[in-house]
Amino acid sequence: MSWVAGADGPWGTHNLPYGVADGRIVVRIGDQVLDLQSVLALEALRSSTLNDFMALGPDAWRAVRERVVELLTDEQHRETVEPHLSPLAGKTLTLPFAVGDYVDFYSSEDHATNVGKLFRPDSPPLYPNWKHIPIGYHGRSGTVVVTGTEVKRPSGQRKGEAAPVFGPSVRLDIEAEVGFVVGVPSAMGDTVGVDDFAAHVFGVVLVNDWSARDIQAWEYVPLGPFLGKSFATSVSAWVTPLAALATVPAPAQDPEVLPYLAESDRSTYGIDLEVDWNGTVVSRPPFAGMYWTPAQQLAHMTVNGASVRTGDLFASGTVSGPRRDQTGSFLELSWSGADPVKLEDGSERTFLLDGDTVTLTATAPGSTGRPVVLGEVTGTVTG
Amino acid sequence: MSWVAGADGPWGTHNLPYGVADGRIVVRIGDQVLDLQSVLALEALRSSTLNDFMALGPDAWRAVRERVVELLTDEQHRETVEPHLSPLAGKTLTLPFAVGDYVDFYSSEDHATNVGKLFRPDSPPLYPNWKHIPIGYHGRSGTVVVTGTEVKRPSGQRKGEAAPVFGPSVRLDIEAEVGFVVGVPSAMGDTVGVDDFAAHVFGVVLVNDWSARDIQAWEYVPLGPFLGKSFATSVSAWVTPLAALATVPAPAQDPEVLPYLAESDRSTYGIDLEVDWNGTVVSRPPFAGMYWTPAQQLAHMTVNGASVRTGDLFASGTVSGPRRDQTGSFLELSWSGADPVKLEDGSERTFLLDGDTVTLTATAPGSTGRPVVLGEVTGTVTG
Repeated sequence: MSWVAGADGPWGTHNLPYGVADGRIVVRIGDQVLDLQSVLALEALRSSTLNDFMALGPDAWRAVRERVVELLTDEQHRETVEPHLSPLAGKTLTLPFAVGDYVDFYSSEDHATNVGKLFRPDSPPLYPNWKHIPIGYHGRSGTVVVTGTEVKRPSGQRKGEAAPVFGPSVRLDIEAEVGFVVGVPSAMGDTVGVDDFAAHVFGVVLVNDWSARDIQAWEYVPLGPFLGKSFATSVSAWVTPLAALATVPAPAQDPEVLPYLAESDRSTYGIDLEVDWNGTVVSRPPFAGMYWTPAQQLAHMTVNGASVRTGDLFASGTVSGPRRDQTGSFLELSWSGADPVKLEDGSERTFLLDGDTVTLTATAPGSTGRPVVLGEVTGTVTG
Repeated sequence: MSWVAGADGPWGTHNLPYGVADGRIVVRIGDQVLDLQSVLALEALRSSTLNDFMALGPDAWRAVRERVVELLTDEQHRETVEPHLSPLAGKTLTLPFAVGDYVDFYSSEDHATNVGKLFRPDSPPLYPNWKHIPIGYHGRSGTVVVTGTEVKRPSGQRKGEAAPVFGPSVRLDIEAEVGFVVGVPSAMGDTVGVDDFAAHVFGVVLVNDWSARDIQAWEYVPLGPFLGKSFATSVSAWVTPLAALATVPAPAQDPEVLPYLAESDRSTYGIDLEVDWNGTVVSRPPFAGMYWTPAQQLAHMTVNGASVRTGDLFASGTVSGPRRDQTGSFLELSWSGADPVKLEDGSERTFLLDGDTVTLTATAPGSTGRPVVLGEVTGTVTG
């Protein structure tokens, strides 16, 4: 039990996510933050990003976490530690890590099936490669922004009658995702095995991969999404360390995957998301049901010898469950606009209007048995 | 006329590309390099990458270039400057800039047409969007490597009879490209106009975007190329400043492009490439014929409000001309393997074998009237 007031809530010592507040690395405890470089003599913590610390690897991550728990629970440390706690309120939270490469996967079978049904109603909804490959692509790392950043509606080309037309996107959407942050790099030419996930990945963020469906639909053949996605990707300010999370079984796969994707212990995280649209919870996407696990994504991403770097972010792809109210995009939730979503203020929505705010939150089973709350990711659309 | 011996050749004061040798910023003059921080009092030059210098913008770029020309031509500086010249031979050239985002375009009409004919023989070779959009996608910036780096043949999935098979790529290819390096960043939400190219772009590199065609063909629907490209992209060690290059007219476009892509002065660079395969020049791709210019690529890339950062690299896409011996990939040169290429040693090639070396070189009309040689990019395939 922590001596910190309010630590018996969701932000207790079972959680302890890392962030950067007012330019310094902190962990969150209750409604306060602990300034880490003031209480731990570790050079990597003297930084305005988590990268140097994340590069140290699992032994250092474990040692720091254990020491922080000790400092915050043992009364004998209270006198020395308390001066380095301060209220979270009023602090500026910045992007907690410098992003290397950003990769976005497409790993929900329900999402891929929904998209297939909407865009190719006369064909099988999944492409032949989908159950063999964790399909993914590179996104723009320079426009990954922290929660709270306003998102300006992008302009671009969309399909017109005779010729394309240019203007602000008229089908602006979200994608509710879970992102994984690489700590320990790999060398070019090496691979990261499917069972080596925890030796490389530091933690988890929530991701909103804002998407302009009209721009995307016109541009994506044959090289994939580009400007329909590259204008902004929002992530939470808190990185939840893997150590805080319990693992849960992942769904069975059929057909059998190739050996490099075959996990000895097929597991994932039981992260339950909530999508809030202007104050109404419109969807509850379940991450545990994703067909491809983050360990498979990392193994796939490196099987060709591509290196990973500290700060690389790879996101799950839109998290959608089998039910309509479990979908992670408004494309699916409104069935491409055919079935508007009613908000609690009585208004109806299909895609995003200027002024709309979307907030993703999540909880997950924690490694101590207490559930873990993940950091939210929120953003408001501006015209 | 420079007082440096050998400066009357292709690496004279009309050229002066920037690089990083033994960890310090240099310009090349003849077969020597000039250590810049020793002769210029500019903090941004005290670095092991060009990024800080590139961020300063066109006025600083111009001032430094003019001063270096003066130092290397005016005899009165010889005594103070000569001690800071040293032979290039024996120096280690590293990646001259830290890469932000890497974007790869697809801007040669001949290349896109050839690929269309090969892969979709029963359809029009160009997709409906191709003449409206400079089609592009994000590549992996963490695996951009400097010339001379060995390229390990990637393994991955490729299409099989009943199920995909896994193994080393059997259709390993090159893509001869020209890359543009961003100096001056733009803010998120802003756009870079099609006439503002020179206010942001610092210089040019040669690029070999190594490609595993079998991996790419199986993975790329619907999100584009991923592991077929992400294992390695090689760039030259020298960044040729735009100031060294003359502009030449770019091809006319039909149909008319949207206003944000319409240049007031439609121009490009007359970069003539050579592709050398194990000592035989097999192709001479002409960059000037590319349908989309780099100014249009940059304007398109930012029209949705995506920012660019110092160090961002955007490449032209495979440079192919109308003739077979002007194509920038072996997919085209060997017509997908149907028409092997004879090398001078008598051997025949379709795709790359282990041990093969490919070297791209190029020359272009220079701003002083003397032709400019660009830095080569070479790589050898290992098994």
